[in-house]
Amino acid sequence: MSVYLSEFLGTMIMILLGDGVVAGVLLKDSKAKDAGWSVITWAWGLAVLMGIYVAAASGAHLNPAITLAMASIGKLSWALVPGYMAAQFAGAFTGAVLVYLTYLPHWAGTVDPKVKLGVFCTIPAVRSLPSNILTEVIGTFVLVYCVLAIGSNNLSAGLAPIGVALLVVVIGMSLGGPTGYGINPARDFGPRLAHALLPIPGKGGSDWGYAPVPIVGSVIGALLAAFTYRAIAG
Amino acid sequence: MSVYLSEFLGTMIMILLGDGVVAGVLLKDSKAKDAGWSVITWAWGLAVLMGIYVAAASGAHLNPAITLAMASIGKLSWALVPGYMAAQFAGAFTGAVLVYLTYLPHWAGTVDPKVKLGVFCTIPAVRSLPSNILTEVIGTFVLVYCVLAIGSNNLSAGLAPIGVALLVVVIGMSLGGPTGYGINPARDFGPRLAHALLPIPGKGGSDWGYAPVPIVGSVIGALLAAFTYRAIAG
Amino acid sequence: MSVYLSEFLGTMIMILLGDGVVAGVLLKDSKAKDAGWSVITWAWGLAVLMGIYVAAASGAHLNPAITLAMASIGKLSWALVPGYMAAQFAGAFTGAVLVYLTYLPHWAGTVDPKVKLGVFCTIPAVRSLPSNILTEVIGTFVLVYCVLAIGSNNLSAGLAPIGVALLVVVIGMSLGGPTGYGINPARDFGPRLAHALLPIPGKGGSDWGYAPVPIVGSVIGALLAAFTYRAIAG
Amino acid sequence: MSVYLSEFLGTMIMILLGDGVVAGVLLKDSKAKDAGWSVITWAWGLAVLMGIYVAAASGAHLNPAITLAMASIGKLSWALVPGYMAAQFAGAFTGAVLVYLTYLPHWAGTVDPKVKLGVFCTIPAVRSLPSNILTEVIGTFVLVYCVLAIGSNNLSAGLAPIGVALLVVVIGMSLGGPTGYGINPARDFGPRLAHALLPIPGKGGSDWGYAPVPIVGSVIGALLAAFTYRAIAG
Repeated sequence: MSVYLSEFLGTMIMILLGDGVVAGVLLKDSKAKDAGWSVITWAWGLAVLMGIYVAAASGAHLNPAITLAMASIGKLSWALVPGYMAAQFAGAFTGAVLVYLTYLPHWAGTVDPKVKLGVFCTIPAVRSLPSNILTEVIGTFVLVYCVLAIGSNNLSAGLAPIGVALLVVVIGMSLGGPTGYGINPARDFGPRLAHALLPIPGKGGSDWGYAPVPIVGSVIGALLAAFTYRAIAG
Repeated sequence: MSVYLSEFLGTMIMILLGDGVVAGVLLKDSKAKDAGWSVITWAWGLAVLMGIYVAAASGAHLNPAITLAMASIGKLSWALVPGYMAAQFAGAFTGAVLVYLTYLPHWAGTVDPKVKLGVFCTIPAVRSLPSNILTEVIGTFVLVYCVLAIGSNNLSAGLAPIGVALLVVVIGMSLGGPTGYGINPARDFGPRLAHALLPIPGKGGSDWGYAPVPIVGSVIGALLAAFTYRAIAG
Repeated sequence: MSVYLSEFLGTMIMILLGDGVVAGVLLKDSKAKDAGWSVITWAWGLAVLMGIYVAAASGAHLNPAITLAMASIGKLSWALVPGYMAAQFAGAFTGAVLVYLTYLPHWAGTVDPKVKLGVFCTIPAVRSLPSNILTEVIGTFVLVYCVLAIGSNNLSAGLAPIGVALLVVVIGMSLGGPTGYGINPARDFGPRLAHALLPIPGKGGSDWGYAPVPIVGSVIGALLAAFTYRAIAG
Repeated sequence: MSVYLSEFLGTMIMILLGDGVVAGVLLKDSKAKDAGWSVITWAWGLAVLMGIYVAAASGAHLNPAITLAMASIGKLSWALVPGYMAAQFAGAFTGAVLVYLTYLPHWAGTVDPKVKLGVFCTIPAVRSLPSNILTEVIGTFVLVYCVLAIGSNNLSAGLAPIGVALLVVVIGMSLGGPTGYGINPARDFGPRLAHALLPIPGKGGSDWGYAPVPIVGSVIGALLAAFTYRAIAG
């Protein structure tokens, strides 16, 4: 399997399961309605775990900010970066389309357009772009720094993916409150585009004004973490 | 132990624990009453884990759709398929009878017949057979594709069952909202038959009109996943 | 360390953490008040895990029903049985005393005597002794059969304790609704005795009429499971 | 990396994620608002896990009480103790500052000053200093005794950190009800100091009268556990 197909499929599965849990918790009549933040954060962590299993052939970046950070510290060839990123965005878009199909009978009954948008991409709890960017920087710093730390621990085969999944769970629980933890440009932009293009009944705008925040914040946070890690522990 | 007895016992334990949690959360006066979707989805994942431990001798399919998919891509002899499937349906039926016995004093107090049926088999949140089938196809595709991916990762002994259990947890959390995630013909049909035959006080019909949906959806999803996996990663 | 001291300490830690979570969820003003069945069942599973780590020297039975079952199928010398059991009961009693001390300022404020009793030992949701015994038989059967199955799987060092902990979690979630899952004579009797003897403000009776149920049920279930396992898979 | 930098970074990450979840659950408008005790206790356990991964180079004490206990039983040179402790307090302080920044737009909207203090440090449910100290002694005894027991089990590489994380989860669930489980002088004192110094809008006092309780209780509990463990199992 090509590394690009691997990134595409892993990101697709991750977003199908990740945006899927938000649909389950938010959309009208869903059996998971109002299941709460515990279910959302656990499912996102396990969504990443499944993405890692599916995308093992490419190292399972599943996140353009991680790809950029890895290339920046010499852990990925720059020649692969455009393909990795394109695959991640396309996979995230496709995963969001699958969420739309999985929950097909639930869109019409859900009234609030903002709830429907929230299934696809992140919306800040308090809109304040500099603070929102800072939150995304900190969240992505923790993500990338700890991913690198986990990789340097001498774990039995198969425990690193579980460690990374638990990392995503705790980032969601602990740092996700202000912005819904984008921490991944593809996770936010791909589904936002799907929201804009899909024939969702009663949808509102796709809030493109906020779209740069998770991208800028996650790229800054990932680069900071990678260079910090290399300076300290590399 | 014969592989058929293994599949029977594993599926029985899985359904006892899986339908058991639904009984605990739904039936009147249960100490787990209203414990919510988090408990239901975690317990179903762990129910599968216990089924895997018990049915290790037969590879722990526990699911006719998985058996069919494995045979279709040459990972199980077709000669074993009928016996595997019969054992799975019988195990699921027996597990459901044990749930009935475990919660014996709780059936009479529970008023709504639909709640009682929901302990045994799946009921769609919004009844729309084509959409319900599609949801089951997507859920089972994710199940089978990720099971195959987990098997191809180089995990330490004992981590693959945990990965599969976590897969079932996240499928429930993320894709279970519309149909209650049958994703297994035996899981739905065996307990539905038990519901029809058991002397449950104040029960209603067994909703046989919906019975084909999880069967058809899970078989299509499993076959799609198996052939896709073989084409891409095999 | 002697095996008896090992069983004593392991059971003590298990009951301190197990009855402790019930105190946390039930007692007035506790920060864990009303945290629900999810927290209770997870904490009991993890309480067993810590008991296993502490009592590794003695094989971590932590349960007279398991000790009896193991001796019955030749996996423990009968000469050790009385000492194991005495240590388990004493450890459970001591763990319950520690729970009393941990939550010292919370007993007076909690009004309902039944709530206080419920911190220490099990109380059936619907009192019906034959049904309650049957529920305990089924729960303990699953416990012992799966413990034996987990032991026969070829797991990496350290995964069996985690499997057993997850088993206890799912038994609680799925089979604990009717009786609160005693499934262990020491877990119920030791703390019940502590309840009878401790100077708990405003306590009521210790409900000795129910005390035989978890003992009889768990012994029958454990022996059934051990002999079934030996007949089928031994 | 120096062991001091390792302890600093590990404790910083632990407190960022640990105090972060309290901020998420308590502060106004947070997406994790009212997510409950389950989310708080799971996230604290996973926060410790990430601290362990980050601070592997120094053995990941992350807690002056553990450092003192380890030195007392000869598992750490006394010469390293002051540096370890300074790094832990500084890391905890820095982690709390990062929580302040992550949740920057949420402080002004949260009215109750006690809620804001509760994000940073522990507050007893019922103020009774002798009982509160006793609760902290018991909680820290369980922490240190089980950490030592986990270390003596023959676990596959990478399972001990997971065992310790689950230990912290269950201590929170089961013993955290009365005092919010300080069980670590740095975890309580560092963030309390940050609360005193940071320009948090509408904050109240930092409750310095309670500050000695988690310090005294955790030191006593840790030393008791270390000497008990050495006497029994060493």
